[in-house]
Amino acid sequence: MQDHLSQTFAALADPTRRAMLARLARGEANVSDLAKPFLKDMSLPAVTKHVQVLEKAGLITKSRNAQYRPCKINGESLRDVVDWVEQYRTFWEESFDRLDAYLKTVVEKKKSKGTNHGRKK
Amino acid sequence: MQDHLSQTFAALADPTRRAMLARLARGEANVSDLAKPFLKDMSLPAVTKHVQVLEKAGLITKSRNAQYRPCKINGESLRDVVDWVEQYRTFWEESFDRLDAYLKTVVEKKKSKGTNHGRKK
Repeated sequence: MQDHLSQTFAALADPTRRAMLARLARGEANVSDLAKPFLKDMSLPAVTKHVQVLEKAGLITKSRNAQYRPCKINGESLRDVVDWVEQYRTFWEESFDRLDAYLKTVVEKKKSKGTNHGRKK
Repeated sequence: MQDHLSQTFAALADPTRRAMLARLARGEANVSDLAKPFLKDMSLPAVTKHVQVLEKAGLITKSRNAQYRPCKINGESLRDVVDWVEQYRTFWEESFDRLDAYLKTVVEKKKSKGTNHGRKK
């Protein structure tokens, strides 16, 4: 059996499932509303399977409300991801710093090009 | 082809690969040193495959140094994970808050048990 963190990462390893989470970040949605935007590219069973993968990984919870099944994001599984990645802070902070430094160089270059009117003939 | 973030999450969805990253967080290691602790449970080709998955996902980089192949963590792919999870901050912070509140209740209960000497006869 897959450990819980592996199950969470595996569930996140798919753009459709991440798009579903992005939709739910804007608010709860019934399974049918959640499925709708994906039905032009895939079958209903395929979409339902993605919802089930998210649910099994604990990334969403589905409740019952008469005939509706509202889904919402469950922060706990996301917290596990944050907890895990936090151990590697030194590495990703270094990477943010490098990105910052690079972007500053780009801005500086643009500025100096700006004073020369940035044109070459 | 799998998008880069999906590839990163898929690479993290395995306890052996996460253990390899944990080892590399303590410092660079040659492929053979990195492989060693896992060889009691799996074959060398299986271990090498895991290293390759991490490398393809950009989570580690392997350089050449004569006959050695030192591996190290590449913070950029981890930064992608951080960037992604950051969008869901409201959800995981809520979850941290709930955990905090729960732990406080447990501590309070222990304290009040402590004043009653916490013993039942």
